[in-house]
Amino acid sequence: MGCLQPPEDDVARPTAESSDAQAAPRDLPTLTREQTHNKFSRDIEPRLRVPSGTTVRFETEEATDGQLTPDSTAEDLLTVDFDRVHPLTGPVFVEGAEPGDVLKVTLERVEAGGWGWNGILPGFSYLADEFTEPYLRTYEFDPDDPDVRFLDGVRVPLRPFPGVIAVAPDTSERLNTIPPRANGGNMDDKDLTEGAIVYLPVFVPGALFSIGDGHAAQGDGEVCGTAIEIPMTVEAKLEVIKGGRSIKEPQYEHAGYYAVTAFGTDLDQAGRKATRYMLDYLVEDRGLDRTEAYALASVAADLKIAEVVDLPHMLVTMKIPKDIFVRE
Amino acid sequence: MGCLQPPEDDVARPTAESSDAQAAPRDLPTLTREQTHNKFSRDIEPRLRVPSGTTVRFETEEATDGQLTPDSTAEDLLTVDFDRVHPLTGPVFVEGAEPGDVLKVTLERVEAGGWGWNGILPGFSYLADEFTEPYLRTYEFDPDDPDVRFLDGVRVPLRPFPGVIAVAPDTSERLNTIPPRANGGNMDDKDLTEGAIVYLPVFVPGALFSIGDGHAAQGDGEVCGTAIEIPMTVEAKLEVIKGGRSIKEPQYEHAGYYAVTAFGTDLDQAGRKATRYMLDYLVEDRGLDRTEAYALASVAADLKIAEVVDLPHMLVTMKIPKDIFVRE
Repeated sequence: MGCLQPPEDDVARPTAESSDAQAAPRDLPTLTREQTHNKFSRDIEPRLRVPSGTTVRFETEEATDGQLTPDSTAEDLLTVDFDRVHPLTGPVFVEGAEPGDVLKVTLERVEAGGWGWNGILPGFSYLADEFTEPYLRTYEFDPDDPDVRFLDGVRVPLRPFPGVIAVAPDTSERLNTIPPRANGGNMDDKDLTEGAIVYLPVFVPGALFSIGDGHAAQGDGEVCGTAIEIPMTVEAKLEVIKGGRSIKEPQYEHAGYYAVTAFGTDLDQAGRKATRYMLDYLVEDRGLDRTEAYALASVAADLKIAEVVDLPHMLVTMKIPKDIFVRE
Repeated sequence: MGCLQPPEDDVARPTAESSDAQAAPRDLPTLTREQTHNKFSRDIEPRLRVPSGTTVRFETEEATDGQLTPDSTAEDLLTVDFDRVHPLTGPVFVEGAEPGDVLKVTLERVEAGGWGWNGILPGFSYLADEFTEPYLRTYEFDPDDPDVRFLDGVRVPLRPFPGVIAVAPDTSERLNTIPPRANGGNMDDKDLTEGAIVYLPVFVPGALFSIGDGHAAQGDGEVCGTAIEIPMTVEAKLEVIKGGRSIKEPQYEHAGYYAVTAFGTDLDQAGRKATRYMLDYLVEDRGLDRTEAYALASVAADLKIAEVVDLPHMLVTMKIPKDIFVRE
C-alpha cells in the first residue's frame, strides 16, 4: 500500500520558461505535429523511447488534424472526416513502465498555438435535438492579451489544456478517440492545465503515452461539443511509479486539490465510480476508515462534471482540497 | 423581455452585523424555530406577512427537528421519524407577489448555530448498497475557529448555507421536502452562502417563502446523504420582481457568477435542463443569439453537480462568470 502523492514541495509549478516567453526554449526531446496517431491500441509503434523522469516536448495539432484553418466556415464542418479526429502526438515508450505501474505526468508547460476554432457539429453536442445546423467561428490570439474576444462584448480568458492525455489500452483493436476510457484519452477536464500532475494506470509495457486535442478555453461539460480547439505545445515530464497504490482510471492533483476521474455511459454511473475512487484515495493514501472517508467526501469533496459530449462516455471528476489534512 | 439581474452595485455584501459578532442585532421581524412546517403546500398558513423589500430573520432548526442532539449516537439515527424531517421556518407572505412574478431573496446574513451532526442513514445515500450501517458524529463549534475538526487530522472550513430555500408550490397536496422541485426546496447547493441572491419563481399569491435545513459544510454532491447539519440564523431580504424575465426554477448570483438550477430524476435530465436555462439567460438577459449562447456556454459556463441524494430528484447547476461580459 503505497502513496501516489508526492511531498507538497514536489508539486509542479510553472517554470521560468513557461512564465517568460522570451526565455530560450529548453533543449528537450521533441515530437512534432507530424508524429501522430489517431486511434488507441497497444500495437501502435512508439515514436520515441525515453528513460523515466524525462521531460518531452509535444507539439500537437488541433482536433481535426488540419482539416479546419483560420479561414474555415461553418460549411466546412460538414465535410470534416471524423476518422482523422484527434491526431495525438506520440506515443512515447517510457522505459521501465509495466502493466500495474502508474505513469506520473507533470504538465510543466502548456502553451496555446496562435489560433483556434469553436463550433457546433450537427448531431455531436449535449442538446443535439435543438441545434441541428453547423456553426463555426475561428479566432486569432493576441500574444499580449490573456483573453479572447469570443463574441462582441464577451471576453473569455485563455486557460489552455490538453483535452486528450492517454496511455495505450491493452488491446490490439484500434479504438476511436472520442470517448474517454480507463487509459484516459479524451477526458476534456478543463482543470488539467499547466502545473497539473496526472497519474495514469499503465496497461502495456512502456505505457505508450500520447497527448493532444488542445483547448484554449472550456467550461465544465463542454456542452456544445467543442471548446476553443487549438494547436498547442506541451512539455510533460514522464515518470514511472512502481509499487504505489493501484489506480483504475486517471487521477490528478492541481491547484491544491487531489482529484479522481471516472467515465461512464451516463453521469450517474460515472459519479458513483468517482465517489468510490475518492474513498479509495482517502483510505489508502490518507489512512481514513472507509465510512469516515465517505462522511468526509460528503462534507468536503466536490463531484464535478468534466464532459457530457464525448459519447458513449461522460466523465465525472471528484476533487478534495489537500489543505484540510493537517498534522495535529 | 426584462432583466432579472440587479446592477452590479446592488449585489449583497455581508453587512456590518454579519461581519462583527459584537454589533447589536438588527431589529427585524423574526420567525423562531418553533414557527415551522415540514411539507410544501399552498394551503399552509403564513406565519408572517411583510411588504416587498423587508428583511426577515429566520431562526431554523436542524434537519431532524430536534430528534438529534449533541449527545446522540449512531443508534439514534435508526429511530429518526422521517415525517418530521426538514422543519422549515415560515412561510412568509410577501405582499404583492403573484404567480408569474419572481421572488428575489438576498441572503444578507447566514450564521451557523453552535453545534452540528453528520451521519449516514442506511438506504439514504449515493452508495447506499455499500454503506448499510448507521454512522453519526456530532460537533460543537468553537466561535473563534473558522474550521471544524471533522476527524483526527482533518479540519473542514465552515461555510454555512441553508439546504432548503423555497416558495410554496401551487398544490393543495402536502409534498414531502426531500426532493428539490421547481419551487426550490431541498436544493442543497453549497454555493447559496451569505451574500447570494436567489431568484425563485412565484406560484401562489404571497409567494409563501420558507427556509431551513442549515448546513455548516458540504461538498458538491453531498454523497453520504448529509452535510454537517445545523441549526442556523438567516437574515434574508424578500423582494418581489414584477414584469421581469420568467424563470421556471430557481436561479442565483453569487461570487461573480450567474447560476441556473434544474432538478431531474437523473443528472443527465437535470444537466440538459440547466443548460437550456443558461441559454435562456444568455439570450434574454445578455442579448445573445441562441446558437452563440450555446457556444459560449460550452467554453465559459460550468455544469456543476449540486446534490445526488435527495431522491427522486438530483440537482444540477450551471454557472457563468459575469465579468466576461464587457462593454466595448
